[in-house]
Amino acid sequence: MRIANYNERAALLVGPRAEPRVLDIAAISDGRFGPDLPALYRDWADFLGWTASLSTDSQGIPLDRRLLGAPSPSPRQVFAVGLNYHAHAAESGFASPTDLPPVFTKYVSAFTGPDTEVTLPEGGNVDWEVELVVVIGREGRRVDASAAWGHVAGLTVGQDISERVSQLRGPAPQFGLGKSFPGFAPQGPWLVTPDEFDDPGDLELGCTLDGEEVQKGRTRDLIFDVPALISALSRTVTLYPGDVVFTGTPSGVGVGRDPQRFVQPGQRLHSWIEGIGELNQTFRPATETE
Amino acid sequence: MRIANYNERAALLVGPRAEPRVLDIAAISDGRFGPDLPALYRDWADFLGWTASLSTDSQGIPLDRRLLGAPSPSPRQVFAVGLNYHAHAAESGFASPTDLPPVFTKYVSAFTGPDTEVTLPEGGNVDWEVELVVVIGREGRRVDASAAWGHVAGLTVGQDISERVSQLRGPAPQFGLGKSFPGFAPQGPWLVTPDEFDDPGDLELGCTLDGEEVQKGRTRDLIFDVPALISALSRTVTLYPGDVVFTGTPSGVGVGRDPQRFVQPGQRLHSWIEGIGELNQTFRPATETE
Repeated sequence: MRIANYNERAALLVGPRAEPRVLDIAAISDGRFGPDLPALYRDWADFLGWTASLSTDSQGIPLDRRLLGAPSPSPRQVFAVGLNYHAHAAESGFASPTDLPPVFTKYVSAFTGPDTEVTLPEGGNVDWEVELVVVIGREGRRVDASAAWGHVAGLTVGQDISERVSQLRGPAPQFGLGKSFPGFAPQGPWLVTPDEFDDPGDLELGCTLDGEEVQKGRTRDLIFDVPALISALSRTVTLYPGDVVFTGTPSGVGVGRDPQRFVQPGQRLHSWIEGIGELNQTFRPATETE
Repeated sequence: MRIANYNERAALLVGPRAEPRVLDIAAISDGRFGPDLPALYRDWADFLGWTASLSTDSQGIPLDRRLLGAPSPSPRQVFAVGLNYHAHAAESGFASPTDLPPVFTKYVSAFTGPDTEVTLPEGGNVDWEVELVVVIGREGRRVDASAAWGHVAGLTVGQDISERVSQLRGPAPQFGLGKSFPGFAPQGPWLVTPDEFDDPGDLELGCTLDGEEVQKGRTRDLIFDVPALISALSRTVTLYPGDVVFTGTPSGVGVGRDPQRFVQPGQRLHSWIEGIGELNQTFRPATETE
């Protein structure tokens, strides 16, 4: 099943991948579920039960991607995991984490839908990080890894766009703020439930910059995979429905290259994950007012 | 003016500091403002205007502190600033930040009201950090420091309780998760609007452990003061009404002592800020289920 934030309303996507049709969940459920995405994640088990008996064969309107927003637009908590692929940790000049993943946040004011124009902050070095993003569908604390997939509403594509100067500067670099400029957390195009995949733990992901492949990896190479992350995070915090987890990026980022390489005005970043979909960002220079 | 989260409803405190009385804002406003704190911060300017003509001389019920919650219980964004007093940066073994404050988050699942019992995570080194906490009352991006106080709804007391092992472990320590165990972000007892202070930029704050003074400082010694923080944060993110900013702790934490010293089961932590109020935490050992 594919769930979308469509024109700021909860929607279901049906039909062929190439030509999906959009169903408004509040309309087709006669109000049993409202248009509000955060409420849908709070009612996730009920919603799944209801969709099991839903017939959607001939309904819906054609998809207009410009109306797609982030699948979970107002999470209570956003977790972003650093250095979660060995090759990326190495290219970043860090040892791989062992017992605990490094966890920072991306602030929600940076959240957008899948297809956007992003302003390059003045004086910044802006880099790409394609990532599998998990949205939580069931509250939990001290979740055992063996039960973790039961807490996942679905998976989507994220770009953890990163301004490296502010991310890495200062006496104790904290990553979150440099990764939270406006538009730095595009997500989508929709949420895909785990049952849609042959193996939700092994998906190919990558991104291209102006058509050149810059990242390509598989989520089976995550140091802390989705169950391990849910288990590790919930040893500290309570995970809430709608919470968002950026799981980390594979190798190929610009800061790890020799010479280093960053996004230039006018460039197009295309990101994708097998079985989910794609994001499209274009970049423009900063102006006085931004 | 003092605003409280009282039994999960927005409340106004009136009368003498020693014996405040509680007014339910939804009730006294005849529903013009609801009980919901996040909505109150979104309507903050209207609310301030309405309170200007309010007569509260003989109303209210006596305060029961056990019913107090965090003044902003569901912020969209939580900013916590590290190393923001020179003496604390030095005792922590870090240089002081210069151009940018280090910013991490405290996750909202750690938020509580002012008087609580906190479980010590097994194997952890739990430390105290009394902090001035700012709640935002007006949305803003690229806020000039000279206009920043106009974006502040009010000030409250926070404890940035910190588990040092997980905070500082790994190849690129990110502080947030180790500072977000359950109960690690007590706040309150209420929000005090900036106009209540002779100088909201110079408040004494401190804390005692089992009656022994362990921290004492003044907010005039902040490296990045409240206007500078609001200006710096909003150069990256949009600040939303209800957002919470932990501004950093003065010197005297346990990890900076020789020998180091951490909270023990049964100890009582009492935190206070001049003109605002106090927090009271007691600590208990972890059990199997926590």
